[in-house]
Amino acid sequence: MKIAIDVMGGDNAPEAPIAGVMAALEVFPHIEFILVGNEKKITPNLPKSERISIIHTEEIIEPDDEPVKAVRRKKNASMVLAATAVKEGKADACISAGNTGALMAAGLFKVGRLSGIDRPALAPTLPTMDGKGFLLLDAGANMDAKPMHLLHYAIMGSIYAERVRKIPSPRVGLLNVGTEEGKGNELTKQAFHLLKKAPMNFIGNIESRDLLEGIADVVVADGFSGNLVLKTAEGTASSLLSLLKSELTSSFWAKVAAAMLKPRLAGIKKKADYSEYGGAALFGLQAPIIKAHGSSNANAILNAIRQTNEIVEKDVLRQIKEIIKDLNFAEME
Amino acid sequence: MKIAIDVMGGDNAPEAPIAGVMAALEVFPHIEFILVGNEKKITPNLPKSERISIIHTEEIIEPDDEPVKAVRRKKNASMVLAATAVKEGKADACISAGNTGALMAAGLFKVGRLSGIDRPALAPTLPTMDGKGFLLLDAGANMDAKPMHLLHYAIMGSIYAERVRKIPSPRVGLLNVGTEEGKGNELTKQAFHLLKKAPMNFIGNIESRDLLEGIADVVVADGFSGNLVLKTAEGTASSLLSLLKSELTSSFWAKVAAAMLKPRLAGIKKKADYSEYGGAALFGLQAPIIKAHGSSNANAILNAIRQTNEIVEKDVLRQIKEIIKDLNFAEME
Repeated sequence: MKIAIDVMGGDNAPEAPIAGVMAALEVFPHIEFILVGNEKKITPNLPKSERISIIHTEEIIEPDDEPVKAVRRKKNASMVLAATAVKEGKADACISAGNTGALMAAGLFKVGRLSGIDRPALAPTLPTMDGKGFLLLDAGANMDAKPMHLLHYAIMGSIYAERVRKIPSPRVGLLNVGTEEGKGNELTKQAFHLLKKAPMNFIGNIESRDLLEGIADVVVADGFSGNLVLKTAEGTASSLLSLLKSELTSSFWAKVAAAMLKPRLAGIKKKADYSEYGGAALFGLQAPIIKAHGSSNANAILNAIRQTNEIVEKDVLRQIKEIIKDLNFAEME
Repeated sequence: MKIAIDVMGGDNAPEAPIAGVMAALEVFPHIEFILVGNEKKITPNLPKSERISIIHTEEIIEPDDEPVKAVRRKKNASMVLAATAVKEGKADACISAGNTGALMAAGLFKVGRLSGIDRPALAPTLPTMDGKGFLLLDAGANMDAKPMHLLHYAIMGSIYAERVRKIPSPRVGLLNVGTEEGKGNELTKQAFHLLKKAPMNFIGNIESRDLLEGIADVVVADGFSGNLVLKTAEGTASSLLSLLKSELTSSFWAKVAAAMLKPRLAGIKKKADYSEYGGAALFGLQAPIIKAHGSSNANAILNAIRQTNEIVEKDVLRQIKEIIKDLNFAEME
C-alpha cells in the first residue's frame, strides 16, 4: 500500500506530518509513503528508508486561499500533487492537514467522484462523553443537499463505521429538530422516507442536544446544518472551558482547588481530544482522501494513517459502490 | 395594560405563574392580569386584588400534544383561551410556559399574522459569556424559510433589541458556515443581499462557534438551523457540566476541591441562567405572544411579564409594521 502525504499542510507542518510518518514506518511495515513538499525542508528531518519517496514542490495552498481558485491556479501545490499521485495510480490514498475546501476541490478535480455518488461528504469523527465518538456527515462539503444525497451519506457512513470503526450494525440517525417522524424541513422529511427503506440500522430522527451523549454512531445531515452543529459544539465547549479556566484562577483558593483537580480536568480534555480519532474522510471520491485536523500533531497524523490503512485494506469504497449500485432508486423515490 | 397569563402551562404550573404574577403586581402597578386556568387550583394561592381576574377552564394542552391538532381540538385549553382573550381585545398580550408549537398555533389561529409578515419567528434570548445575551430568530417556528423571511426576522429582531433590550444600533448577524460574503447555502447567499440593503446595522455572516462570545446582538437563521444550533449549545453545555460534576465528585480530594470552588462554579451557572432573560417572543403576530421557558420559576415569569410590558409600552409591533411597509421590496429583490 502506498499513501501520499502533503507534508506542507497544517499548523505544524512539515514537522508533525514527518514525525507521524516516521512513527507509522514502525507500526505499519507494509505501507510505503510518498512525501509531497519542499525537499529542503523535508530531508533534514528524514531518516533514510526505502519505503519513503519524495515529490518535490515549493508551491503551497494557504489556509485562507479560496479553495477552487487555489487548486486551479496552484497546479503544483503540495496538496494538488498528492491528489494527482492518487489519480495517476502512484498512491492508493492521500492525507493532508491543509485547507479543507481546497482538499475537497483537489479530490473532485483530480481523483473524481465515486460512480453513483453525486456529492462527496466531509466526515469527521466527533467526541462523545463515553469516549466512543460518532461520525458526522456531511460536515460542510455540500451546502445544498437533496434527500438522495443524505441517503448516500448514510450508506457511506454506515459502511465506514462498521468496517473501519468496527461497530457492529452501527446506529444511523438523521439530524433533526425533533425525534418523531414527520418533524423537520422538507429535506429531512423526504430523507427520512429514503433512509427508512435503506439497508442499514436507521434509528430515525435524532436531536442535536443528544449528540455528545452518543445517541448514534453515524449522524447524517446536509453540509450547512452539519457544519453549524459542529462549530456550535466546538464553540460552546471552548467558551465554557475558558470560562471555567478563568474562574479557576481568579483567587488563591480557586487556584489551590484547581491544582487539586488537575488530573480530573485533564480527563475531560482527553475525552475531547481530536487527535485520537484520526482525520475526516472525504467520502464519495474514487480513492480515500483524508483531511487531518489543521492543528494535527504527530499522533494525529499517525492516527490518520491508521484510518487510511483501514479504509484501503477493508476496501470500503468498493463496498459503498456495490451497495449504491444495488439500490433500487425507482422504488425508493 | 392587560396581560393574559396561561397559569396551567410549564413544569411548575400553576404555582410559578401565580407567584410571578403576585410579584409583578408590586413591580408594575399599571398592569392588570387575566389568569387563565382551573379556578380551584388558582384561588387557594391567590391574594385578593382588583387587578386580577380569572377565566376558568379545566382543559390543558400537554407538553407532548401535537400542536396544531391540540389547538383545534382543545378549544377551551388554557393557552387557547389566553390567546382568544388577546384576539377579543380583552388583553394586550399573553404569556404561556406551555407547549411552544401549540402556543405558536394558537397565536396564528386566534391572534393572526402581523400584516406584511409571512412567517412568525420564535425569538429566545440566549446567554453569552459576557452576560449580555443575544436574540436568536427563528429558533424553530418556520422550518423552510425563504430569503425574505430572514429579512423580516432581522427587522423584527433589530427593533426588539433596540427598543426592549435597549441596545443602540444592535449588531445583526446572519448565521452561516463562514464569515466571508458568498459563503453558505442558497438561502443565506440570497438573504445576505437583502440584509445588506435593509435599514439596520447588518454586520454580515457570523459563525456558530462565536455565538457564546457575543459576536452579535441579533442572530438571524431559518427555523431548522436556529433550532439545531440552540439545542447543540444547550446539549454541549449540559454534557460538559455533568461530566465536570461527575469528575468533581469522583474522589475524596476532588470533592474537597469542588466544595472550595462552589461559589466560582455557581457563577458559571448564573451566567447561563435563562430565567434572567424573560421568555421567547413569537414575533410576527398581531399582538405580543410570549413563550416563557418550560421550567420557568416565579422569577422567570416576572421577567417574561417585564419583557411583555416593554414590548407593549414601546409599541414594538407598530414599528415593525411601519418599517416592513416602507421597504421597497421590488428594489430589494
